Amino acid sequence: MYDRILKNLSRFIQLSPQETEIFTSAIKVRHLRRRQYLLQAGDVMRYECFVTEGCLRQYYVDDKGQEHTLNFAFEDWWAGDMYSFLSGQPGKYHLEALEDSTLLLIERQRLEALYDEIPQLNRFYRILLQNAYITMSERINQTLAMTAEERYRSFQQRYPHFEQRLSLKHIASYLGITPESLSRIRSHKK
Amino acid sequence: MYDRILKNLSRFIQLSPQETEIFTSAIKVRHLRRRQYLLQAGDVMRYECFVTEGCLRQYYVDDKGQEHTLNFAFEDWWAGDMYSFLSGQPGKYHLEALEDSTLLLIERQRLEALYDEIPQLNRFYRILLQNAYITMSERINQTLAMTAEERYRSFQQRYPHFEQRLSLKHIASYLGITPESLSRIRSHKK
Repeated sequence: MYDRILKNLSRFIQLSPQETEIFTSAIKVRHLRRRQYLLQAGDVMRYECFVTEGCLRQYYVDDKGQEHTLNFAFEDWWAGDMYSFLSGQPGKYHLEALEDSTLLLIERQRLEALYDEIPQLNRFYRILLQNAYITMSERINQTLAMTAEERYRSFQQRYPHFEQRLSLKHIASYLGITPESLSRIRSHKK
Repeated sequence: MYDRILKNLSRFIQLSPQETEIFTSAIKVRHLRRRQYLLQAGDVMRYECFVTEGCLRQYYVDDKGQEHTLNFAFEDWWAGDMYSFLSGQPGKYHLEALEDSTLLLIERQRLEALYDEIPQLNRFYRILLQNAYITMSERINQTLAMTAEERYRSFQQRYPHFEQRLSLKHIASYLGITPESLSRIRSHKK
C-alpha cells in the first residue's frame, strides 16, 4: 500500500525504519470512484494528497460555465490545490477522479507536526515546492508564448504514455483550445 | 552587516553559533547604485538574494517595449527571479536597484551544500517557498479578478510605508494601469 509513496520520498531523502513508521501512520487512505470529487470549488484543501492508483483532474469553472483544466495527476504524483492547502483559504478548483482512484492523504496539521518529528521532510517538501514553482511558471509562460501545437507537444512530454487515458475534451481544456482544434493538430502528425 | 538576514532566518529556525558562522561565511556582499542592475533579461539568476538596504524592482519588457513590474523588494526581503534561480534557465526579468542598495548573495551551488551542512535551512526555504507560492497565486488572482482600485489598496497593504519611495510610474506598472489612472485612483481618497 505504501510502496509507491515511500519510493517517491526516497528520490530525495532516506527515512529510517522508525521514521517510515511515523510517516505511514500519518497517512489516511481514500478511494474515489470515477467522477467522484476529492474537492470542490469553495472547499479548503485540508490534505496533502498522493495518487497511488487512478487519475485526478484539477480544473475550475469560469463565469461563463466553461471548464479550464490546470493539470492531471496520475499514479506517483502529488495532487491538490496547493494554494488552498498552503494558505488555508477556500480554493477555486475542483479535484475530480477521472478513473477509480486510490489516494493517500496527510492532514495539514499532522504534516506540520511531521516536519518536527522527521526533519528530513523539510528537505523533501522544499524540493517538491521548488519543482511545483518551476512547473507553474513554465505553464504560465507556455500559455502566453506558445502556439496550440507547441503546447500539445509539451503536454505529450509532460504526460508521456498517459494521453490515451484522457478524453479529447479534457486534453483540449488543458491546452486552452477546442476539441476540434485538438483533433486537427493530432491529424497533422498522423 | 548580517543582523538583518540572521533576524530574518530566526523567524522560522534557530541557528547554533557554529551554524551561524557557516551560514555567514557563504554570503557575498554586493552594492548597487541607483539604476544599476543585478540581473538582466536573458541572464541566469545564480544567487539567492537578500536586501539589507535599498530597493530592487523586478520587471520585464514586452514585445512592444512596455515595462511590467512583477514586484519590489525592500530591506529584509528576499528578491530575485525564482524561476531562473531554481531551474537554472535564463530569466526574462530585469532586477534593477531603485535606490543605492546593499545585497547579500548566496551562490546557488553553495546554497545546495548549505542544505546538507545546516539541515534546518531546508525548513526555512520550505516556508519561504510556500509563502512565495501563495504570493504568486494571489498576484495572479488579483490581476484577473480585481479592479484597478482594489489592486491599489492591496498594493498598499503589501508595501506599507514604502509607497512614498516608489515613483508613480513604477507603481502604475506594478498595478497594470497607466500613471494617469493611478493619479485618478489616488485622488478619490484624498
